[in-house]
Amino acid sequence: MDDLVAKIGAQGLKVKELKAAKGPKEEIDAEVAKLVALKQELTGLDPSHELALKEKKKKAPKEAAPAAKGPSKKELRMQERAKKVEMEKKELETAESFGEAEVVMSRSLSERKWTSVGSIEASFVGKRVLVRARVHTTRAKGSLAFLVLRQGCFTVQAVASAQDAGCSKAMIGFLGKIPSESIVDVEAKVVGADVASCTQADVELQIATTFVVSKAAPDLPLQLADAARNELNPKEGEVVVGLDTRLNHRVIDLRTPANQAIMRIKSAVPLLFTSYLDKRGFVGVNSPKLLAGASEGGSSVFSLEYFGRPACLAQSPQLYKQMLSACADLERVYEIGPVFRAEDSNTRRHLCEFTGLDLEMAIYEHYYEVLDVFAGLFSHIFSSLETKFAAELNIISQVYPFEPFKHLPKPLRISFAEGIQLLRDAGVTDDMQGDFDDLSTENEKKLGNVVLEKYGTDYFIMDKYPLSIRPFYTMPDPHTYPSKPPHQQLSNSFDMFMRGQEILSGAQRIHDHKLLMERVTYCHTSAGHGGPAPDTIKSYTDAFKHGAFPHGGGGIGLERVVMLYLDLSNIRKVSCFPRDPGRLTP
Amino acid sequence: MDDLVAKIGAQGLKVKELKAAKGPKEEIDAEVAKLVALKQELTGLDPSHELALKEKKKKAPKEAAPAAKGPSKKELRMQERAKKVEMEKKELETAESFGEAEVVMSRSLSERKWTSVGSIEASFVGKRVLVRARVHTTRAKGSLAFLVLRQGCFTVQAVASAQDAGCSKAMIGFLGKIPSESIVDVEAKVVGADVASCTQADVELQIATTFVVSKAAPDLPLQLADAARNELNPKEGEVVVGLDTRLNHRVIDLRTPANQAIMRIKSAVPLLFTSYLDKRGFVGVNSPKLLAGASEGGSSVFSLEYFGRPACLAQSPQLYKQMLSACADLERVYEIGPVFRAEDSNTRRHLCEFTGLDLEMAIYEHYYEVLDVFAGLFSHIFSSLETKFAAELNIISQVYPFEPFKHLPKPLRISFAEGIQLLRDAGVTDDMQGDFDDLSTENEKKLGNVVLEKYGTDYFIMDKYPLSIRPFYTMPDPHTYPSKPPHQQLSNSFDMFMRGQEILSGAQRIHDHKLLMERVTYCHTSAGHGGPAPDTIKSYTDAFKHGAFPHGGGGIGLERVVMLYLDLSNIRKVSCFPRDPGRLTP
Repeated sequence: MDDLVAKIGAQGLKVKELKAAKGPKEEIDAEVAKLVALKQELTGLDPSHELALKEKKKKAPKEAAPAAKGPSKKELRMQERAKKVEMEKKELETAESFGEAEVVMSRSLSERKWTSVGSIEASFVGKRVLVRARVHTTRAKGSLAFLVLRQGCFTVQAVASAQDAGCSKAMIGFLGKIPSESIVDVEAKVVGADVASCTQADVELQIATTFVVSKAAPDLPLQLADAARNELNPKEGEVVVGLDTRLNHRVIDLRTPANQAIMRIKSAVPLLFTSYLDKRGFVGVNSPKLLAGASEGGSSVFSLEYFGRPACLAQSPQLYKQMLSACADLERVYEIGPVFRAEDSNTRRHLCEFTGLDLEMAIYEHYYEVLDVFAGLFSHIFSSLETKFAAELNIISQVYPFEPFKHLPKPLRISFAEGIQLLRDAGVTDDMQGDFDDLSTENEKKLGNVVLEKYGTDYFIMDKYPLSIRPFYTMPDPHTYPSKPPHQQLSNSFDMFMRGQEILSGAQRIHDHKLLMERVTYCHTSAGHGGPAPDTIKSYTDAFKHGAFPHGGGGIGLERVVMLYLDLSNIRKVSCFPRDPGRLTP
Repeated sequence: MDDLVAKIGAQGLKVKELKAAKGPKEEIDAEVAKLVALKQELTGLDPSHELALKEKKKKAPKEAAPAAKGPSKKELRMQERAKKVEMEKKELETAESFGEAEVVMSRSLSERKWTSVGSIEASFVGKRVLVRARVHTTRAKGSLAFLVLRQGCFTVQAVASAQDAGCSKAMIGFLGKIPSESIVDVEAKVVGADVASCTQADVELQIATTFVVSKAAPDLPLQLADAARNELNPKEGEVVVGLDTRLNHRVIDLRTPANQAIMRIKSAVPLLFTSYLDKRGFVGVNSPKLLAGASEGGSSVFSLEYFGRPACLAQSPQLYKQMLSACADLERVYEIGPVFRAEDSNTRRHLCEFTGLDLEMAIYEHYYEVLDVFAGLFSHIFSSLETKFAAELNIISQVYPFEPFKHLPKPLRISFAEGIQLLRDAGVTDDMQGDFDDLSTENEKKLGNVVLEKYGTDYFIMDKYPLSIRPFYTMPDPHTYPSKPPHQQLSNSFDMFMRGQEILSGAQRIHDHKLLMERVTYCHTSAGHGGPAPDTIKSYTDAFKHGAFPHGGGGIGLERVVMLYLDLSNIRKVSCFPRDPGRLTP
């Protein structure tokens, strides 16, 4: 019986679509006949009779006119029949009001207008809308069915009522049984309401028709309502959806409003990055990810075979963006692309594949020119997110509460030495190594706190790192190189921090071939530095032989920037399909 | 001697920079002392004497005043000395006017303003400019030196003249010997001129100072002048730079104005793509490139080991963008990222790594909704290139002449059957297979010609391809599937063509889990189709079990679109560092 109702619904929709699309008359007639036959199965009526009735209906007013002076037998029969016609008409309408739609296969294209759930608000009251959305929840209760419809970050309540909208019992029963996460087309009238549990809180949809476009299997591996909560602070009795479960069923996990919002914010960052740089003369490039050698000489590369030759995946576009900027005369370049790191480290802030946002630019005199670009760029990104994505930030903060990101119009700049001093002043001496050793992740976080307290910013730049802890292509600091002993030499390098975590590493690079060879050789042979062997990067070093622009640049990891901006606990939450040493699917 | 001049130049610049940056007085004095010492080496003067003279010079007018009634011995000596002072001053100025600059290491940051070569035009006449550019060519002739300076796509002539600008002989000699491709800083006055051989044809630079910032080694593997010509139509006696030579020394090849322009146009396409889609509610995503199975089940994948497990590189973001659009509720997504194809085919239009521009979107009723987005998107891209990149298109066409790309405001759409008919009508029967077989590349080109002649467009869309030649995830055409036998079934798919070559493949995809499993199974088992085994793509098919939006999309190869727009002969010309079966470096 349920099946038959569904079939009638589908057939009804087909007829409706055909009519809407003004299909060929014969086809419409044939489909109407099929609908009638189905309906007859349900009601036991003779289909030819049905068609006859339909014809008769049109003439009914005329025939009914003489019946004024009291019902004759014939008249009574006719009245009865008219009643039946009315009933049949209603049932037919009902049949066209709900059910399972045929699979959308581009049969026809109507002129119908669709409305998105997120756009429906008070000004829509009284209007009729057509939406396609997921059934977030549904329940039928007597002559009423309540559905919460969800599309992207937004939800709206929809009500089917026998009394207010003339919905049939069959329809209400049908609506109450639609599996959660199914996708439905709903035609409805917008009415004023007060539904605090939905994002569209001051409206409600009065359902006229509902067709299931894609029916969800009932075996959902996780419930949206559970996944929509913060898994880190469960209340008693709440089902916790752990990160692994979420990631194993990522397409369902991503449907939660907070995740929808995270992905939208993540999507905005590259756009803000490119539009800012495009206006300043930067050229977008795509460097190769398939390389003959290790991209920077590190050991954590993914190796593969390239038509019989050994190859590896780029760990960064570093050497190529330098060549394009300084040697191939593009001068100012940026690149957005995947970065592959075969590091076997399972931390909250590392991924084996992430999206790198890199830039490299010719400078005239000083790497401060690079810092100025980065400072302006980040201000642009942070401010735009605040203003353009206030709704998304609000949705995320309801699930994963965070302090709004604090940043100064002109970012704070301190030197590495000053950073060390700030830590010492704050009494941090444990684990602190010499003045020329790198800071531990732990001490970076402490420094972030000190800076936040002292300067009121979650974001700052630290420069003049010791030369010994930076890669071979880093330009030495002219005041300590080569005049001081190696362990006291500084470099024209810098890092940027968000909430005490490094998000960007940059520097002036060496453009002078002689100095480059000197440093390549030194870093390869000096203990503990681990630079690549000179012959493995010959095509890179050779590129600097025939004139190269002084230049500098840096790169950020998209996922890490978004994670820290939102103060999320795990970088995997920002990747659509994260890759770590233990995860290669989905 | 040359070395000494260079040293003096460098030291002079250092002093100048320090002064400009208002460095500490003691440091300036120390550097001035060094400069004087160097100069003394050249002139044989006593440095202390020099400093004394400098002091004296300031008081000179006062002391010179009484000398009016005829020169005494003392006065003559003083005159002589004053002359010497004047000469020394001039020499000092000369020493600050040319030479090899110290390596730029961010010593100081002045307030100097820099001008780009491409911006210098008639309105600049009379102004003093400071440019950093490559020495394209140089020659010294008597008391004149002519340099052509090049920056990006643009060139300007610079002249050092003893007569007009008081340049010393030493300076002119120095300028004439700067190796081509070196990078120089030139301070100059802009004067009106008529230099047809330079892009900045109505101006010329009157050189005041020139310092070499990065000296090119003289062993250039290819001459820019040769590389700047079209290698396909050499005139007699011209050196031809073949594609392999170009690609082996790509950083130098990319410096040619035509290549600079190609890379700038290529850079614009993704920006136009994203800005158009962003305005229409699309979300940018980054799907993983490291996969556990073959991305679409093809055999031409690059394999690698992922922490001990077999993995491969994504051949396309196809399955992931579908999951994100239809199953994870992002609805409208785009992705720009590398695509890896291990096809061992060395053609002019294939690369093993290229940049894919993909989109996938939920549709309501019909894949025409996708076609409408693509049609608008391409119109936007083509029109914007025409208007915003007229200069670059002109530069390219001078080297690689091409017919401007013809496109209609509303692109032509024909069905596959109509395409076949157009070919038959044009008398193409050779190699034509049945009505349900794919078109050969050769016949696609012929069809492109037929369409261009008949409809006046280089760009059109063809849809309703036979189902059998499309991938398993393609939505069948409802009018032939399943009603007709398999070899007569059509699909809701389409291709787009530019100048008779396919640039985009798209379709409505199957969102219905039951139908998807039916097609996956059929395509895997049916002879010749070669679809993936159902169990290898289970995480993909499972994603459609819990409700999925009807959807469709397509993807283009960035390099191919730019190649065809510019009618270039080889796709490698559009890749910064192309990868093909024979090439993995640089």
